[in-house]
Amino acid sequence: MTAGKFLQTLAGMRFATPPIWLMRQAGRYLPEYRAVRATTRSFLEFCYTPEKAVEVTLQPVRRYMLDAGIIFSDILVVPDALGQKVWFEEGEGPKLEALTDPVQFGQLSRARLPDHLAPVYAAIRETRRVLPPEVALLGFAGAPFTLACYMIEGGSSRDFARVKGWAYRHPDSFGLLIDLLVEAIVDHLAYQVEAGADAVQLFDSWAGVLPEEQLFGWSLEPMVRIAHGLRARHPKVPIIAFPRGVGPAALMYRRTDAFSALSIDTAIGAHWAARELQPSICIQGNLDPIMLATGGPALKREATRILDKLGHGSFIFNLGHGVVPQTPPEHVAELVETVRTWTPSTS
Amino acid sequence: MTAGKFLQTLAGMRFATPPIWLMRQAGRYLPEYRAVRATTRSFLEFCYTPEKAVEVTLQPVRRYMLDAGIIFSDILVVPDALGQKVWFEEGEGPKLEALTDPVQFGQLSRARLPDHLAPVYAAIRETRRVLPPEVALLGFAGAPFTLACYMIEGGSSRDFARVKGWAYRHPDSFGLLIDLLVEAIVDHLAYQVEAGADAVQLFDSWAGVLPEEQLFGWSLEPMVRIAHGLRARHPKVPIIAFPRGVGPAALMYRRTDAFSALSIDTAIGAHWAARELQPSICIQGNLDPIMLATGGPALKREATRILDKLGHGSFIFNLGHGVVPQTPPEHVAELVETVRTWTPSTS
Repeated sequence: MTAGKFLQTLAGMRFATPPIWLMRQAGRYLPEYRAVRATTRSFLEFCYTPEKAVEVTLQPVRRYMLDAGIIFSDILVVPDALGQKVWFEEGEGPKLEALTDPVQFGQLSRARLPDHLAPVYAAIRETRRVLPPEVALLGFAGAPFTLACYMIEGGSSRDFARVKGWAYRHPDSFGLLIDLLVEAIVDHLAYQVEAGADAVQLFDSWAGVLPEEQLFGWSLEPMVRIAHGLRARHPKVPIIAFPRGVGPAALMYRRTDAFSALSIDTAIGAHWAARELQPSICIQGNLDPIMLATGGPALKREATRILDKLGHGSFIFNLGHGVVPQTPPEHVAELVETVRTWTPSTS
Repeated sequence: MTAGKFLQTLAGMRFATPPIWLMRQAGRYLPEYRAVRATTRSFLEFCYTPEKAVEVTLQPVRRYMLDAGIIFSDILVVPDALGQKVWFEEGEGPKLEALTDPVQFGQLSRARLPDHLAPVYAAIRETRRVLPPEVALLGFAGAPFTLACYMIEGGSSRDFARVKGWAYRHPDSFGLLIDLLVEAIVDHLAYQVEAGADAVQLFDSWAGVLPEEQLFGWSLEPMVRIAHGLRARHPKVPIIAFPRGVGPAALMYRRTDAFSALSIDTAIGAHWAARELQPSICIQGNLDPIMLATGGPALKREATRILDKLGHGSFIFNLGHGVVPQTPPEHVAELVETVRTWTPSTS
């Protein structure tokens, strides 16, 4: 298989313009996605139907000729596979039967993963089969702290009082949950790689709510353990870390022995990232999704500004967070065009 | 009047232990607050009743002997005074009749401020009169971008798509709103100082949702203009800037010609702040409010960790965000005790 621009960039090669893909590129903003989504009522059932997951994974790659596809799935398939009750309510986001006592951890078992998530791996196998060889296929997982947030809060949260209260008051039992998740996530990522994922991304979407010491212990350290665990099974797979909202603590994640790239959110300035992070690690990011939804000259200008700051180093163009549903699909085409026709300024 | 520890710290003096106050220290976690709050149905009417605002401002200062009080009010009194419809729905947060067209800016007038907000200034006058001289009284305002968020979104928001869409698409008209708010905020802060506020804090609570270039233009630059505008009228008043969620861009706010201190949120590590920010400017922050709600050994340990990192330089102990309603009041007493009995380690 010919490795395309995306994988070659992760391997340290450089091109005239960076590779591009977008978080949540397969999603509600695309009419062809909504058409497939409408055929299944339950969101999880939708994720677990390989032909549908394959189709929506391919849609944005086909439409925009992106450098990578990301398998259509959800980070909450892991708690679901572990045995926690997970469901999605229309317009309300995910709901889980919240964990309230460490005794419940005993009911969670990673032995269920291979069977329960077989449809995800089947979708990856089929997507990899039909995807052009130069387009990389990404697998992914939520990082342990982010999954623990959902598992203890029972859904999204405004202040993360339950999960943080537990982690602060009972770090030992919280650590057991993190350990259990580390192992489950290593398995889930390894199975994705075995099914054909060329690289994986670890999303720690809620890392930014932790103070620095807990960020180290509950976000960075478990992510590094996952990376080492995965590499023990698949030594060469590129791993992208996305610790969202961590601010200057992004400096802690420049661990090139663990991660191949660091995805940054919009609050991390491209200028600072170019100076402080990019010399050590490939950077992915960080256009504001609302800028993509806005489009027009502002989009072109902002994408060019990011390219001017980060395009001279090791870089993958992406958003700072996922595509929002109200994004007009033609804006994505404009963005891809801007990235592909960017000319590095000499200044 | 004898300036106490808080004002002296802002003036560059150092003490064995730092001064302490807490954002939202007057609030629902205190039973004595809830008792006063229960006597008025509307939240804005509550803010505009001087004797009640004075009483709840004094409650935490009395209970905990804090080094500063902050006048009980709300950042949305400014849009309210400008003529925008603002109301609070129980359990839902603030609501505003959202601005949708720049033509509506013409209906906003800062001429109404002195009359409309007279009860706020009366409350400050009375609070200053009864507050012990060594306890500083803070006035405050929301920064222009944060007020614009509420004014255009019509309340809180998950993705700030309306306000950012407007700012990105029509920067000129958005700039007019920011300019109008800069002037209104300078007035509001100046009136607070004239009524007896010893220092002021500018809250840019939503600054963190902006990319770096817009952060400069819509958050930092207007805040600097406000600081200069206020200093033109009150040359010596200390101004604390709190640009929440801005990550490494906190570096941009170390503008000592504009701000006397920089308040940092929990996502900014104390270690990084001590190294990168504190050598230039007094730091305020940044204990996680959920840690305060948790209490116990974890609270003492985390407060001590922050003190060990930041207590050797110019520092005001505070939270990274406001006190949460579920905080047991005795935890605040424990925190104050921890701060007041902290012994700098020699390491």
